[in-house]
Amino acid sequence: MAGYNLEAIEAAPLKEDVDIVIPTIRSLDFLEQWRPFLKHYHLIIVQDGDPSINIRVPEGYDYELYNRNDINRILGPRANCISYKDGGCRCFGFMVSKKKYIYTIDDDCFVAKDPSGKEINVIAQHIKNLETPSTPHYFNTLYDPFRDGTDFVRGYPFSLREGVTTAISHGLWLNIPDYDAPTQLVKPRERNIRYVDAVMTIPKGVLYPMCGMNLAFNRELIGPAMYFGLMGEGQPISRYDDMWAGWAAKVVCDHLGFGVKTGLPYVWHSKASNPFVNLKKEHKGLHWQEEMVPFFQNLRLSKESDTAAKCYMELSKMTKEKLTEVDPYFENLADAMVAWIEAWEELNPPVDGKDVKAK
Amino acid sequence: MAGYNLEAIEAAPLKEDVDIVIPTIRSLDFLEQWRPFLKHYHLIIVQDGDPSINIRVPEGYDYELYNRNDINRILGPRANCISYKDGGCRCFGFMVSKKKYIYTIDDDCFVAKDPSGKEINVIAQHIKNLETPSTPHYFNTLYDPFRDGTDFVRGYPFSLREGVTTAISHGLWLNIPDYDAPTQLVKPRERNIRYVDAVMTIPKGVLYPMCGMNLAFNRELIGPAMYFGLMGEGQPISRYDDMWAGWAAKVVCDHLGFGVKTGLPYVWHSKASNPFVNLKKEHKGLHWQEEMVPFFQNLRLSKESDTAAKCYMELSKMTKEKLTEVDPYFENLADAMVAWIEAWEELNPPVDGKDVKAK
Repeated sequence: MAGYNLEAIEAAPLKEDVDIVIPTIRSLDFLEQWRPFLKHYHLIIVQDGDPSINIRVPEGYDYELYNRNDINRILGPRANCISYKDGGCRCFGFMVSKKKYIYTIDDDCFVAKDPSGKEINVIAQHIKNLETPSTPHYFNTLYDPFRDGTDFVRGYPFSLREGVTTAISHGLWLNIPDYDAPTQLVKPRERNIRYVDAVMTIPKGVLYPMCGMNLAFNRELIGPAMYFGLMGEGQPISRYDDMWAGWAAKVVCDHLGFGVKTGLPYVWHSKASNPFVNLKKEHKGLHWQEEMVPFFQNLRLSKESDTAAKCYMELSKMTKEKLTEVDPYFENLADAMVAWIEAWEELNPPVDGKDVKAK
Repeated sequence: MAGYNLEAIEAAPLKEDVDIVIPTIRSLDFLEQWRPFLKHYHLIIVQDGDPSINIRVPEGYDYELYNRNDINRILGPRANCISYKDGGCRCFGFMVSKKKYIYTIDDDCFVAKDPSGKEINVIAQHIKNLETPSTPHYFNTLYDPFRDGTDFVRGYPFSLREGVTTAISHGLWLNIPDYDAPTQLVKPRERNIRYVDAVMTIPKGVLYPMCGMNLAFNRELIGPAMYFGLMGEGQPISRYDDMWAGWAAKVVCDHLGFGVKTGLPYVWHSKASNPFVNLKKEHKGLHWQEEMVPFFQNLRLSKESDTAAKCYMELSKMTKEKLTEVDPYFENLADAMVAWIEAWEELNPPVDGKDVKAK
């Protein structure tokens, strides 16, 4: 581990710097099990669906809760950029937070155990991932060199060992793997039982499927690019909210010189969603991803785009130009991307003209 | 696991298709421990240093042994391309083999155990890695999708799920990590005790430090690019033999559309080499790698180079053009690269004009 005090990072929960964002349509009883790890943190609950339903939050948690009426009231005409009846509504929570870090988790995820039987402190691991650098320019074969007990191996250029600031920490899931509907249908009984004890940087220029189930990021650096798109009711597509955010945020991170990590920590994912329902939600996405992935792989952002917000505005233009020929939906999405950034900037005005720029 | 019968691959040792190449200066008593796993395979032993020394090979192994006199006799004036007094001499063994796969291992590496206490069958795992596809175009967050119990996750384009043919399988090491001399000096007691239960593809366009300690590859696809350079006696540099081969082979794999995997299997690396001796051997390399890595990152091979041998000839020209300004050594290296390919082609003439081309 190259010069970072990981114990200090683990001991410090950074509770003043982290908001936990949870999208939900039901009672949040799952938080009972999370109490030892999450009780210190402030929750932002985004209630999806019928706003008249009463969401029960376990006692003792400090939280704010937004339902659809709140979103409409706060964002006004721009509220349409927030998905309805889809987990993608969580990004509203990213926007109203004032913290440096966001951790977002699904309400069917529970505390997982490491192979020694110890319960995993997801926040501590995500904070470690985010507070130590990433190494996107060259692959380290012993994985995260900033982890205790390891380092950069022979043949790793010294000029690259400082790494870059980490913006995203993508955590994984034991038990129910995050498969698409066709794979769920083919392998209904497959469970992820393999605990891979690693964190790694996803190299620059490489895309990955970002899952929103167990995800942390630096809101100040990358927040405006963490838009979960237009999904759910009234839209032709669902279950691509996190994918869209992941592809966009990765190209923005690559452009701005920030790093993205994946691996630890694991959560226990309990509930397989219905593959037939998923197939209906996904079927356009399964087709469109063949166009969306090359779109993100090939685009080049301009030098002038030196903040996540500016990158995202440029990305909305490219989306309109290149993806509208795939489906008119992308024109609406591109407009929503603009509305998202406008709303973000209204709720998060630059302080003293200060803005987080690329290194 | 997407459509491959891994049990069949594990059961079939492919003993007719694999040669094991071992460079050594001493008796090969380490093979006693490897007997359950390596006894079925043919060994090619490349004796480094004084040819008059008698190398003891444990009874029952089927082997051929080449010392410096043999190399000089077989390669004639081109024998200078094979390093002397450096582990890089192992590549002579790659050249004289007639098999599809090479597994090369250092004589200070022993059988490692997985976390359940089971001894690891390195060959079986390397063959699995090589006989299942790689996925260099997009990152799968659950690692190797061709492994039992896992698959491609949601958001992985279907058009990319076939993968590409794997050419290289880079295995890791428990106990003594493969650090450079400065890191060895700073952390003399660091041991790798973390068994990371994963195999992954190193994405296209990404370089990594390839270690020759525990390495397998498809000789037919990539053999000519597995040249371990000019190192050791009479040369200004050592301990970069495998790095040079790794960088070159990776850019050739990327160009030809082949994949490179890293991770399992582990060996137990027993002996830390002397960091002061290593520092002397490495010091130019530690400096030059700052130029060599960008050289490999930025080069583009031409369409005409559609075999590993042609790619390597083009690479030798580029080495002469771009790296000679770093040090005149690279001019000699570039000439040796040409001699290596000429010798390779003499020993491995194309059968019926057949040559392994890019897909």
